[in-house]
Amino acid sequence: MNEIARLEFCDYISAARDGYEPVSGGQYSSLAVESWRGIFHKEREVIDRDDIMEAHLFRHACKVFDSQKKISPEDFEAILEAGRLSPSSFGFEPWRFLVVQDMQMRQRLLPLVWGAQRILPTASHFVVILARKGDSMRYDSDYIMHMMRDVHRLSEESAKMRREKFEKFQREDFRLLDSERALFDWSCKQCYIALANMMSTASMLGIDSCAVEGFVGDEIESMAPELFGYDSREFGVAVMVAFGYRIEAPKPKTRQKMEDIVEWYPQR
Amino acid sequence: MNEIARLEFCDYISAARDGYEPVSGGQYSSLAVESWRGIFHKEREVIDRDDIMEAHLFRHACKVFDSQKKISPEDFEAILEAGRLSPSSFGFEPWRFLVVQDMQMRQRLLPLVWGAQRILPTASHFVVILARKGDSMRYDSDYIMHMMRDVHRLSEESAKMRREKFEKFQREDFRLLDSERALFDWSCKQCYIALANMMSTASMLGIDSCAVEGFVGDEIESMAPELFGYDSREFGVAVMVAFGYRIEAPKPKTRQKMEDIVEWYPQR
Repeated sequence: MNEIARLEFCDYISAARDGYEPVSGGQYSSLAVESWRGIFHKEREVIDRDDIMEAHLFRHACKVFDSQKKISPEDFEAILEAGRLSPSSFGFEPWRFLVVQDMQMRQRLLPLVWGAQRILPTASHFVVILARKGDSMRYDSDYIMHMMRDVHRLSEESAKMRREKFEKFQREDFRLLDSERALFDWSCKQCYIALANMMSTASMLGIDSCAVEGFVGDEIESMAPELFGYDSREFGVAVMVAFGYRIEAPKPKTRQKMEDIVEWYPQR
Repeated sequence: MNEIARLEFCDYISAARDGYEPVSGGQYSSLAVESWRGIFHKEREVIDRDDIMEAHLFRHACKVFDSQKKISPEDFEAILEAGRLSPSSFGFEPWRFLVVQDMQMRQRLLPLVWGAQRILPTASHFVVILARKGDSMRYDSDYIMHMMRDVHRLSEESAKMRREKFEKFQREDFRLLDSERALFDWSCKQCYIALANMMSTASMLGIDSCAVEGFVGDEIESMAPELFGYDSREFGVAVMVAFGYRIEAPKPKTRQKMEDIVEWYPQR
């Protein structure tokens, strides 16, 4: 990137971070919109394909980390930012990231997280990803209204139409209102997008990671809300993820062959 | 990367693609393992942090594509490869990617996919991601046994232990055997990891994408198995994703602020 593009990019990041402040009535100034468009349309240098693939190959489920090596604040901020910028269904961002750096808290998690016995004591950063539950993710919840009004900055009329579409999606298209669990699992799916983006961003930065599903769901659900101080009607634990630096050589990667998992229409 | 590293990397990619052929009895030659380790341990150049963040900001839900611009075979292969190399729970890769380039097939999908009305006719590549259902994802299925034996190359004894752990995980830890839907939704979560890695890889390559959940689940389920020729007892549609090049300026990105979605323990 040249220097001017980089300056624009910094503005852009801070705008994304702060949220565009609308000038009035939920509308953006045309200058702001033009400025976004200019940045979105500018030619950018793409990242070398081999470097991307190397990062994907570098990533493996790192089961123990070098407890002496800490991720820099700048790199970890980028990992969180990759999670924050992730796409989600209807743009409702049904996630929260708990960064557990308190070693006593990690100790309390240990008996319930069999998949992280060597990870919890050694990871540079350990994140519990919460997903929103029915109380805050139903189409008629306060949270959804807040997202449409305050984050998406929709007008009252647009918000009303959007909510109707979202109700139909939840009720009919995906039958998410059939059970509490169906709605929660759908929230979790969105969280797995953020999970993946955080892990791949880490691997591009040369940082190792491990997604952790190895925990006893019921026990975590009965302990985590009090430990972390969140409302169990609003959130549940979706998945966990650790970041740090490898200390052991990984096992050879195993995958199904491309032709076993991809079908082309028409056939090639 | 220097030239020698690149050569090693090519070997590595082709080894990953072909699967390591074990010399006998499910064991890898020590040379093969050493070679993997060497590659995993070699210093690699990381990707510039700003370039990664730019790619995440570049990505948006692209609702219409330039129908004249096609993704190169090399770039699309890299996108699929990012999906293939994605992590999944227990490494069971519960996905299949259907690349729908047949425009008549896209036409048939159109009435059922309200979220892709302008996408289906214009996307360079359109992918339906299938997730495995109970028939092939229960701990005691033929597929799981195949993955452990033929892909993970576990010994009979290791496979037996692994299967017991996986049964406990499915039955108790995550209660995935409580309903067909719970198991399918969990498969879908893994597919969302692959989805995210395909989209972020695309954005790094300057390629636009859009994840598509906007379809009528029941109608898709009753039509897709016959259209694409897959077994509806083994697979269901998890999500869809389009790739191509933008033709319209995106709307400004909206996101919650970092402090609204991240909690640090101890507090910062």
